[in-house]
Amino acid sequence: MEIIIRNAVREDMSSVLQLIKELAEFEKEPDAVEVTVEELVDAGFGKQKQFDCFVAEVGQKIVGMALVYFRFSTWKGKTVHLEDLIVTENMRGKGVGQTLYRRVLEYAMDQGVKRVNWVVLDWNKPAIEFYERSGATILSNWWQVEMEEPALKAYIGKKQ
Amino acid sequence: MEIIIRNAVREDMSSVLQLIKELAEFEKEPDAVEVTVEELVDAGFGKQKQFDCFVAEVGQKIVGMALVYFRFSTWKGKTVHLEDLIVTENMRGKGVGQTLYRRVLEYAMDQGVKRVNWVVLDWNKPAIEFYERSGATILSNWWQVEMEEPALKAYIGKKQ
Repeated sequence: MEIIIRNAVREDMSSVLQLIKELAEFEKEPDAVEVTVEELVDAGFGKQKQFDCFVAEVGQKIVGMALVYFRFSTWKGKTVHLEDLIVTENMRGKGVGQTLYRRVLEYAMDQGVKRVNWVVLDWNKPAIEFYERSGATILSNWWQVEMEEPALKAYIGKKQ
Repeated sequence: MEIIIRNAVREDMSSVLQLIKELAEFEKEPDAVEVTVEELVDAGFGKQKQFDCFVAEVGQKIVGMALVYFRFSTWKGKTVHLEDLIVTENMRGKGVGQTLYRRVLEYAMDQGVKRVNWVVLDWNKPAIEFYERSGATILSNWWQVEMEEPALKAYIGKKQ
């Protein structure tokens, strides 16, 4: 089975969105995806590029993707953040994920960053074990904090 | 006590680095800061701007800072990430942090993002309680993963 990894183009964003929705279902949040194909095209290929995306093809069909962008660590400087690495369900366990993972890490090396970061769900043991085997460190003591738009508006609306 | 919040300028980066180092000590990793003043100036004010920074002044002295940049959520689109919010030790508990926090959230509103995100250490209870009171959500089930440069090089060097 030949796995081809290439840079995504605008026309791939529809397939990429399908993969994003599939991951949201796997993560038990099927309704969380608000982003549209148009937003992905604009953010990935518009004037203010917000991410880079790689797709994995098998038999000319997109079966996986990885989406990355830069962050800035006040300790390390510029880092690469891996936002998503997704392989469609019926193609898992065939090396597609590993090939995409390597491509992302090669990209990070090429960019000369001192760190690559991403997040993982605590119950996703196979992923955690894979990451640890590859040399990554899991930091279970750093928790994510999120403030969504409604809470943001409510907070700003309050008197100081 | 008058607290002035303003956009940082190049000349502030030395004070900002001092605050970054102070936070690293608080987080029990005093040697983790590799970034230099020159890198901060370049990343914050160079051709490829990597972050925005706000400073808090009291009596013309910088006593706090907040550093933010954009991320891209495949669920929500563009988000604001708060990388650091730091108040120097002898000025804590006087409202400086809260004023910086509000400034960051106002900035996020102005940018029209659907989410602001950051991370917190699990033992930092006062911070966690403050964030929750303000309407933010703590996601303790999403863990950070990091691959540092030496591990990255080792992984890439291996045969596939």
